[in-house]
Amino acid sequence: MISSPSDLRKLKISELTNVASEIRQEMLDTVSKTGGHLASSLGAVELAIAIHYTFNTPEDKIVWDVGHQTYPHKILTGRLKAFSTLRQLGGLSGFPNKDESPEYDLFTCGHSSTSISTALGLVSARDLKKEKNKVVAVIGDASLAGGMSFEALNNAGHMKKDIIIILNDNELSISRSVGALSRYLNRIISAPAYNKIRKDVEKVLMRIPRFGFRAYRAARKLEEGLKNLLIPGMLFEEMGFRYFGPIDGHNISELIKVFKNTMDLNEPILIHAVTKKGKGYRFAEERPGDFHGTGPFHKETGEKIIKAEPKSFTEAFGEKMLELAPKDERVLAITAAMQDGTGLDRFADLYPDRFFDVGISEEHAIGLASGLARGGFKPVVCVYSTFLQRGYDQIIHDICLQGLPVVLCLDRAGIVGEDGPTHHGVFDIAYLRHIPNLIFMAPRDPEELSKMLDFALKQEGPVAIRYPKGYASAISVKDNPIELGKAEVTREGKDVAIISLGSMAPIAMEAAELLAKKKISALVADARFIKPLDSELIRRIANNIKNIVTIEEGVSEGGFGGAVLEFIERENLKGVKVKRICLPDKFIEHGKRSELFLKYNLTPEAVCDVIVNEVMNG
Amino acid sequence: MISSPSDLRKLKISELTNVASEIRQEMLDTVSKTGGHLASSLGAVELAIAIHYTFNTPEDKIVWDVGHQTYPHKILTGRLKAFSTLRQLGGLSGFPNKDESPEYDLFTCGHSSTSISTALGLVSARDLKKEKNKVVAVIGDASLAGGMSFEALNNAGHMKKDIIIILNDNELSISRSVGALSRYLNRIISAPAYNKIRKDVEKVLMRIPRFGFRAYRAARKLEEGLKNLLIPGMLFEEMGFRYFGPIDGHNISELIKVFKNTMDLNEPILIHAVTKKGKGYRFAEERPGDFHGTGPFHKETGEKIIKAEPKSFTEAFGEKMLELAPKDERVLAITAAMQDGTGLDRFADLYPDRFFDVGISEEHAIGLASGLARGGFKPVVCVYSTFLQRGYDQIIHDICLQGLPVVLCLDRAGIVGEDGPTHHGVFDIAYLRHIPNLIFMAPRDPEELSKMLDFALKQEGPVAIRYPKGYASAISVKDNPIELGKAEVTREGKDVAIISLGSMAPIAMEAAELLAKKKISALVADARFIKPLDSELIRRIANNIKNIVTIEEGVSEGGFGGAVLEFIERENLKGVKVKRICLPDKFIEHGKRSELFLKYNLTPEAVCDVIVNEVMNG
Repeated sequence: MISSPSDLRKLKISELTNVASEIRQEMLDTVSKTGGHLASSLGAVELAIAIHYTFNTPEDKIVWDVGHQTYPHKILTGRLKAFSTLRQLGGLSGFPNKDESPEYDLFTCGHSSTSISTALGLVSARDLKKEKNKVVAVIGDASLAGGMSFEALNNAGHMKKDIIIILNDNELSISRSVGALSRYLNRIISAPAYNKIRKDVEKVLMRIPRFGFRAYRAARKLEEGLKNLLIPGMLFEEMGFRYFGPIDGHNISELIKVFKNTMDLNEPILIHAVTKKGKGYRFAEERPGDFHGTGPFHKETGEKIIKAEPKSFTEAFGEKMLELAPKDERVLAITAAMQDGTGLDRFADLYPDRFFDVGISEEHAIGLASGLARGGFKPVVCVYSTFLQRGYDQIIHDICLQGLPVVLCLDRAGIVGEDGPTHHGVFDIAYLRHIPNLIFMAPRDPEELSKMLDFALKQEGPVAIRYPKGYASAISVKDNPIELGKAEVTREGKDVAIISLGSMAPIAMEAAELLAKKKISALVADARFIKPLDSELIRRIANNIKNIVTIEEGVSEGGFGGAVLEFIERENLKGVKVKRICLPDKFIEHGKRSELFLKYNLTPEAVCDVIVNEVMNG
Repeated sequence: MISSPSDLRKLKISELTNVASEIRQEMLDTVSKTGGHLASSLGAVELAIAIHYTFNTPEDKIVWDVGHQTYPHKILTGRLKAFSTLRQLGGLSGFPNKDESPEYDLFTCGHSSTSISTALGLVSARDLKKEKNKVVAVIGDASLAGGMSFEALNNAGHMKKDIIIILNDNELSISRSVGALSRYLNRIISAPAYNKIRKDVEKVLMRIPRFGFRAYRAARKLEEGLKNLLIPGMLFEEMGFRYFGPIDGHNISELIKVFKNTMDLNEPILIHAVTKKGKGYRFAEERPGDFHGTGPFHKETGEKIIKAEPKSFTEAFGEKMLELAPKDERVLAITAAMQDGTGLDRFADLYPDRFFDVGISEEHAIGLASGLARGGFKPVVCVYSTFLQRGYDQIIHDICLQGLPVVLCLDRAGIVGEDGPTHHGVFDIAYLRHIPNLIFMAPRDPEELSKMLDFALKQEGPVAIRYPKGYASAISVKDNPIELGKAEVTREGKDVAIISLGSMAPIAMEAAELLAKKKISALVADARFIKPLDSELIRRIANNIKNIVTIEEGVSEGGFGGAVLEFIERENLKGVKVKRICLPDKFIEHGKRSELFLKYNLTPEAVCDVIVNEVMNG
């Protein structure tokens, strides 16, 4: 019955608990079928209700960090009916989306640690316009540890503007808490420790003579004691914020009370709410990591509905790292809050000293790798393609300029599917291939990824390897070892040469089959290297076949096909025609990988059509 | 007489003051001739001496953040003789450089806020190897405020490793302190305030009955009082560091004493040293901003040796912003610690409410712009090209995905000259042009920059404008207004078409003159737009002239020439030959802009030669 927050605000506070139950039920019903970010959203139900109940949304502005915890917010802001279409092609987005709800979703988002910055922008805009609305950023403890959050806190504390930050502290990063900040937050919320330290200080104070404060030694002791006295939120107070908390993030009436108390304060406020990830669904409470981003599951048992699938790139990466570790003790693994997602969980268990989870800190992950490599090690940094965008400057400055042997593994490269535009790893070819000193590869299947890791760890400089979500069918050819700058021809032909990058290999092979039926003989090569390109192969094709088609899972500008064009120009190869097949120059929506491939013509049929119509008859 | 730190360590502590004077003299002698980062290096003389005196370098590892304060370090580590070649082509680099001194300069650097990350990497490597050396990161207060520093602090405080951070607090960012952190540091070091707050707390304590601590109200008061008690370094202690300071960063014996005291501690240490930028040279102490990065000057008077030069792009940008501000109150300016360098100083004075200096926080600068634009304003973000690399992910996620009308102005695009490989803005064409929704321009002269700003502010989506250091000679043609995706033909011709990007226009025009003498008739066009390209012009050239030469001040992969190649492929234009003239796929060394242009064939003569030999006869 709630079609907007104003409906919610007509209810009594005592009725809101029922609303919470209904929202949870709706989320469970849908996400058990569609998959999605369940645990975070379950943890934010009461927060979303209390926020929309207290603040005058949409006049007051709410900015949700990352945004995978916004299912309750979506349901409360008119999207209950559409909720069953969550994450489906053409359906509701799994993240805030400005096109879906321009009033309530101020930014389309999906990356972490941006909310305080953008909220501070809204606040500054409001003040310049002399308007009066409130602006609230809701941010998790893991996101708060990202460098951009700190930059924004630092600026907000300095500007002294009227901004409210709600820290949604669920004591968990995506896998587990890392970093001094999370330890600090844990200290705040663990009452026994707090009380013990407080008692210690009291004892010190008691021992000091009544009028002796001026005596140096006593004052010094006092100071030492005070250092240990835990004043909740001191760190935030030092940064210029007024701190409220910790409060129970599942107690709606307490949340409402605190929110109301802060309404008349016109200064930087930080409200520290403690929540439980997965709250209200037993299996998600017990295994929040499994229900962070989940596929479909049986509601009653919490068991995942698993389709038997071939080995994924991620699994192959994890297995290979386990194989490499005992062979070469210089091999280390670094990730940024994605231990499980990158397949490094067993490595972390078996080699805790050689595993570094830095939390949501991609910039630092690259810097740390730089130092480790300079110290003689071979760090393998595994981060999702889209999140490694955060480390772009560091890849240039701290890795490639140094020429250090760091291996960058970009998981989730290309179309990721249901997470949509903020998560597709479609820019990496363009943002990495122009960096000097970098070797850049893409494997066509998990087997080749394994070989490429062997190869990469033998290099004396930096190497990047991109590979997609899921798996790719293997192509049987005789075992050609990886050689620097060498592609692998997987099918010979004479009319057209298809050079596919990474996971596009099976599509290229199938397209060649379709072409054969039309009497067009296609050579197919798996490029293996984006940089350096296989100059010999391209020269051979240019001289003999004359038609080159490139296929890649990446944006059209500055990509792999562009590299081939540039090579041909540089080498002054004449009379060769290139056709690039790639994603268009736009942000790609969410949907299944297969659906998006179909939509964007990355299928054997579409490739065949392009070759027939635009290359052979073009 | 000091050719390495071991020579230094043979001296008595009392002799070190003389060493400091001699280093200052050498720096003044050289930098007054060569230009350079004088003020920071003057401020770090005693630090460098005390560090090399106390720590067993090079076994102990010193990582200098940014690195423009390392002239004393260079002089102490065997580079006194070469010092007069500072920042000259083939001479000493103005920053740490691993090729110049592999032992003492562990990383080639130049960007801010990386030292704690890379030092933590060295520390982790050391511990894995079970070695015993010390690792010290030296970082300024402005750099500490960068997000990457916080990510690294957070990780270091968590790992509890033996690492020493020396905070070189000179109370100044490059122009002035911004941010809550710097205010916090100021509070620590300003003794009167410290004492006053302490007295306030004492008063509160006195009023509490002797045995009344358990009474709630009194305890509450105590807590409130304690909140205000300033314990130096509490913020760092909360992050897991042991804090020492503040100490006088120009008192060598005090520095040595504190360094020695911390030697046996095997935990995260932060030593807070207070220094004065420009120390020991009166004019630099008085005007540290002017002597941050300075050109040659008269040592005796501190007066700059100024060559009369035409108006620079930076000046034109600053003037245009002043012209735009009163016309449209939605126009705002954002910079990241580069108020003067970007020409925004007068804007900041005249429109303090509409000017945002966020400090060294490029990620947040973009996030803030996103929020301001969402709030109805038109923020103009002006950041050096190389530093905007830090905001790459935010440009995608917070600006272009939102389609928000933010104008990104990339100053120092292309070859910057003496600052070298970390500062050349040669990647921006490649890292921006593949982002959907972005309009991307480059003006050929300051006049055109001014027109482009007018144009950019009329757009409804994001626009980037790149322009180089210094100036470019204007080319007189009739006044063609800026039109979306339209180049400007500055000379007609029929044998070859030269499309130049931005500042390369005068070179293209002169090359055309040289070609004319060889009876080759060249059309010359100023591209104006990198994206969208002038499709009509390229089609016209492809159909008639058939030869296209592109010239750009950027790396060869994924650049402007690549965009032209991709356009021709996409449009299936036949029989057209493209030759790209650009920088090679390598990191470019330091040297004068003119010297590097000569070396990398970005001169009229070289362009003419390429066209004669490779295009007309190719």
